[in-house]
Amino acid sequence: MGTTASKATKGVRSETLRRSNLAAIFAMLRTAPSVTRSELVEATGLTRSAVGSLIGELVEYGLATETGAQHDGHRGRPSAMAEIDGTGLAALSFEIGVDGVAAAVVNLRGEVLDDARASRTRGPVAAEPKVDDLVTLANLLGYANGMVGDRRIVGIGVAVAGTVTSDGQRVVMAPNLQWSDVPLADLVSARFGAGVAVTIGNDADVGALAEHRFGAGGGANNMIFVGGEIGVGGGIIVEGHRVHGRSGFAGEFGHMPVNPSGDVCGCGSIGCWETEVGERALLRRAGFDVDSGDAAVQRLLLAAQHGDAAVLDALAEHGGWMAIGLACLINVFDPEIVVMGGMFNDLWRYVEDVVTSDLARTSFGGQERPGVVVAGRLGNSARLIGAAELAFQPLLNDPVSA
Amino acid sequence: MGTTASKATKGVRSETLRRSNLAAIFAMLRTAPSVTRSELVEATGLTRSAVGSLIGELVEYGLATETGAQHDGHRGRPSAMAEIDGTGLAALSFEIGVDGVAAAVVNLRGEVLDDARASRTRGPVAAEPKVDDLVTLANLLGYANGMVGDRRIVGIGVAVAGTVTSDGQRVVMAPNLQWSDVPLADLVSARFGAGVAVTIGNDADVGALAEHRFGAGGGANNMIFVGGEIGVGGGIIVEGHRVHGRSGFAGEFGHMPVNPSGDVCGCGSIGCWETEVGERALLRRAGFDVDSGDAAVQRLLLAAQHGDAAVLDALAEHGGWMAIGLACLINVFDPEIVVMGGMFNDLWRYVEDVVTSDLARTSFGGQERPGVVVAGRLGNSARLIGAAELAFQPLLNDPVSA
Repeated sequence: MGTTASKATKGVRSETLRRSNLAAIFAMLRTAPSVTRSELVEATGLTRSAVGSLIGELVEYGLATETGAQHDGHRGRPSAMAEIDGTGLAALSFEIGVDGVAAAVVNLRGEVLDDARASRTRGPVAAEPKVDDLVTLANLLGYANGMVGDRRIVGIGVAVAGTVTSDGQRVVMAPNLQWSDVPLADLVSARFGAGVAVTIGNDADVGALAEHRFGAGGGANNMIFVGGEIGVGGGIIVEGHRVHGRSGFAGEFGHMPVNPSGDVCGCGSIGCWETEVGERALLRRAGFDVDSGDAAVQRLLLAAQHGDAAVLDALAEHGGWMAIGLACLINVFDPEIVVMGGMFNDLWRYVEDVVTSDLARTSFGGQERPGVVVAGRLGNSARLIGAAELAFQPLLNDPVSA
Repeated sequence: MGTTASKATKGVRSETLRRSNLAAIFAMLRTAPSVTRSELVEATGLTRSAVGSLIGELVEYGLATETGAQHDGHRGRPSAMAEIDGTGLAALSFEIGVDGVAAAVVNLRGEVLDDARASRTRGPVAAEPKVDDLVTLANLLGYANGMVGDRRIVGIGVAVAGTVTSDGQRVVMAPNLQWSDVPLADLVSARFGAGVAVTIGNDADVGALAEHRFGAGGGANNMIFVGGEIGVGGGIIVEGHRVHGRSGFAGEFGHMPVNPSGDVCGCGSIGCWETEVGERALLRRAGFDVDSGDAAVQRLLLAAQHGDAAVLDALAEHGGWMAIGLACLINVFDPEIVVMGGMFNDLWRYVEDVVTSDLARTSFGGQERPGVVVAGRLGNSARLIGAAELAFQPLLNDPVSA
């Protein structure tokens, strides 16, 4: 219910309003290179003096800097330029995939400052040894006592290939890791100390978040992100906000039934999209061992790059199946943009033509909008950047208290 | 961006806040039988005196009544009961389908006061003669000069089996009516006078709205509505709000590709869900003429009621295909509830078992939530009630100015 302050409750409410305004200005600064006070006045509807006082507060907390007066275009008085600072802060983010683990130190602009990765022979690994790997990677990056170098780590975010509870604390199910109901945030917390909050997110969801805020999504109001490796999942942005669903499981695009005479899926259903467009299906079509993992996908892409006809045929067939699920998503959501992440991002150049021509026939408005599906811009950093966003979220909600 | 009032702009903003609070209280009154002041204080976070003053304003404009003090449970002072009035108001709503037209006078509680329907032999009919039919039905219901009896008509809403521009003024495409880019709001306005605003909505979208506010949706945060006749469409509610998509076309569930070896669809694609679960598919499975329309569906349902084995087999097969698209929607949205509308509502009792057992296998969390798919509660009034909601919307946004 859209209730707001009344005169009588003003004493309590004005502090809430102030924080919400502060968060709004902080969010604007984060995604723009630099912004004038006049632009902030226009965008927020607040007065010049209110904006000035809020920026002052961000500067005081080391979250923004003001870099001197500039003329806005040709008229009016000079306006100070504000930009994000945050040089004293960073998030530590991790990714737990089927093929390996990764870690990054990410700044407030969603930029990876340092990262480290380790590929491991595929196969289920219990949660504790995976967390050991995370600790090792964090040490490699110089993490110690809540700091990386001069930067205070404001929080830890973890992207995991599984469904996650909506409080971001537990992994409900990660079929390809063979995890079920794992208290992952607690396991990580126990190794990094209670002073640093840990938040978990589904890998496709956080990939969507990152591409939406810093990548190909460009802040679109309605964006679909499709990420794929061995499993296929996605993230949904509607009116600028992520769609969680009832239990945080929205976006299980890999389990859209697309082929009633298809293969049995790991989930127990038949002909799920994942069985047609996941990594195993691609490897099978190209005549590779279906369980040879990401390393085989990289060999396959190299063969495609060298014009291997059989591999290019396999990719074209794969693209046809990709188009079927994409048509479904476009007809269901009518999105402004669909961003391909994970393995699909790597395949995109080889499947773009077949996908685009199929969608012209099978999606509503497809012919008028051939460019609705695009490759991601953050490559394999998307999930790490998105996981860092989870870590930054308390700070974003309430910049001066977190 | 979530900006709100600052101290310096308070003069301008307090009127906006007041209207928003008024709208919130009005919305609460509309969907509850009656509410005490204490309940409104608790739900809105406003003070008792602020609530009292807002209710006073609604009473003054004939939108609410207060019916004397009641004790709230066992303690505290007596609290006045407020309820919606609006006996002087109604919306006029219309439905334009492939099989016919319908009209209703609907009150502020989403109740149909009077309605009228006409079935016509199926076939494309140009927009102007359809609008003639609407005028005839409105006259039947006693509409004259912006009034029906003692009630002022606050607006006209029209549900149409097609895609509609997001301003609710034009039909973009209605394949089964063979309409393309029809300025329907203007055509209706021209016949009802400029004093009454006309808003158009897609029939499945307004059906969703009605079931969400007054029917089986029960105000769920995340609800999917699936409506079907000859075409199949739907409406999406996420976090309490309807999902429009980029151009207002979200919810084209009928065009999810579910069968790569299926029939060519009217949209040009192959194996769309509509080709498997639309009216024609049902009639074909039961051995009826596929173009014999809703009257044949009613005969089919009667045969099922009498235990006709061939018809029951056809319904079971139909239910299997319904489950495939429903699994897709559940895995994509993770909704709290999926409401079956239109023809699916009528079929539900015959397909519920097969749909539920298939979904237990094919949808995430299906086994834990056998009751996620339910029949609608508003039957074939859903679209008329939803269209009336479009007509009421300006009043709901700003109760004392509209």
